[in-house]
Amino acid sequence: MAAIGRFQRGEEVFYAKVVEGELYRMQGDLFGSPSFERKPTPMKGVRTLVPVTPSKVIAVGLNYADHARETGKSVPREPLFWFKAPSSLLPDGGKIEIPFPEHRTDYEAELAIIIGRRARNVTPSAASRYILGYTAAQDITDRTLQASDGQWGRCKSFDTFTPLGPYIETKLDPQDLTIQLFQNGQLRQNSHTSQMIFNCFQLVSFISTHLTLLPGDVILTGTPAGIGPIQSGDRLEVRIQGLAPLINTVK
Amino acid sequence: MAAIGRFQRGEEVFYAKVVEGELYRMQGDLFGSPSFERKPTPMKGVRTLVPVTPSKVIAVGLNYADHARETGKSVPREPLFWFKAPSSLLPDGGKIEIPFPEHRTDYEAELAIIIGRRARNVTPSAASRYILGYTAAQDITDRTLQASDGQWGRCKSFDTFTPLGPYIETKLDPQDLTIQLFQNGQLRQNSHTSQMIFNCFQLVSFISTHLTLLPGDVILTGTPAGIGPIQSGDRLEVRIQGLAPLINTVK
Repeated sequence: MAAIGRFQRGEEVFYAKVVEGELYRMQGDLFGSPSFERKPTPMKGVRTLVPVTPSKVIAVGLNYADHARETGKSVPREPLFWFKAPSSLLPDGGKIEIPFPEHRTDYEAELAIIIGRRARNVTPSAASRYILGYTAAQDITDRTLQASDGQWGRCKSFDTFTPLGPYIETKLDPQDLTIQLFQNGQLRQNSHTSQMIFNCFQLVSFISTHLTLLPGDVILTGTPAGIGPIQSGDRLEVRIQGLAPLINTVK
Repeated sequence: MAAIGRFQRGEEVFYAKVVEGELYRMQGDLFGSPSFERKPTPMKGVRTLVPVTPSKVIAVGLNYADHARETGKSVPREPLFWFKAPSSLLPDGGKIEIPFPEHRTDYEAELAIIIGRRARNVTPSAASRYILGYTAAQDITDRTLQASDGQWGRCKSFDTFTPLGPYIETKLDPQDLTIQLFQNGQLRQNSHTSQMIFNCFQLVSFISTHLTLLPGDVILTGTPAGIGPIQSGDRLEVRIQGLAPLINTVK
């Protein structure tokens, strides 16, 4: 495998491997041992969907020391996680909608882990076997509600607030990647996944000691420093080394 | 319809109407226009499952004034909601597991709303048409982690922390019900759903202005005063007027 995407043409939804802009349709189960057709499928009328339909979207907070500093919060002693509504997922190319233009609403670039196998009480050294791959994400946040609620569920779970994709990259060292966010071509976030306080394997392990992770579940691994507000008309690009860029506009 | 449950016998999972202890199997879609067989199905080897498999479990906080007082928090001006992991659901009769015996872990009896139709920007007066029915629930909480995290996702999302069921009652006035929790036969919570700060229709409406509710989604409507710690060996019963009791033990 390598880069796998989920696509729609008419009523039909299918998975395919993406190689040099061509799609090779998948046969079998994404979480089993899928195979791929040898001939590319026509691209006409094909649109990209979010790559998975997770039973849960887990967000991890304050996982880059530079971001914890910019928020004025101290670095947590163990991973801080909570949940976003899966109904907030948005595919590559989709439009982010700002519900309250009078609030401050921010971009947040993140590396996302896609779980490949049911996981419960997994050790960090075994965690990679439970990960299918990685993709790019944003954790869009209404800062005004985040402050007034105290809780971080609602302010991050409006429809369109979790851009995810475009594809799942199955061969990647998740701790050796530059992570960047561009807003209208301007570099706003610029860090490296080696700067995570808890790495991807530690996160999967820690979370799996609390609850059962299921195939397709998504873990957003936190955002680096440089967060800032979005506005109607913005073009936002998450660029993570080794992954296709995740590009969304703001309605 | 009336009380509808989800059941398993061997490998087979099915819905059925529950009438005087007998099960009448459902034909068709729970969220469409199902019909029911006229003859009861044999009960041998049947076990009760959680009544739905939701895309999200939404928890509402501080929605009874007496409970807000006991926590020392002020009553919110608008509903405060966040998300629990669906993997925390536990059927009637299931065993609650305490992950950290050295922490304080509490029961919380709640009335649960089961969504019946896709809902987005629904008014309070239209909300009842988007509700399939109601069932009993608990929102088990690790208070120690709730205090240390600040966020309320993790502390309420351990596997087994959301007992739900046993059945969905489709004919019920949700604001005219006694709600009680018994711990080993002792009455610990004793209130009435008329004491909710935001009623069920207001909750569905408010949440639907943020995100898309899908059939089977669960909204926990908050717990009344009287919360307290659980211990290994406890028998916990949620008794809500008009609903079958939800009975769980603590491992």
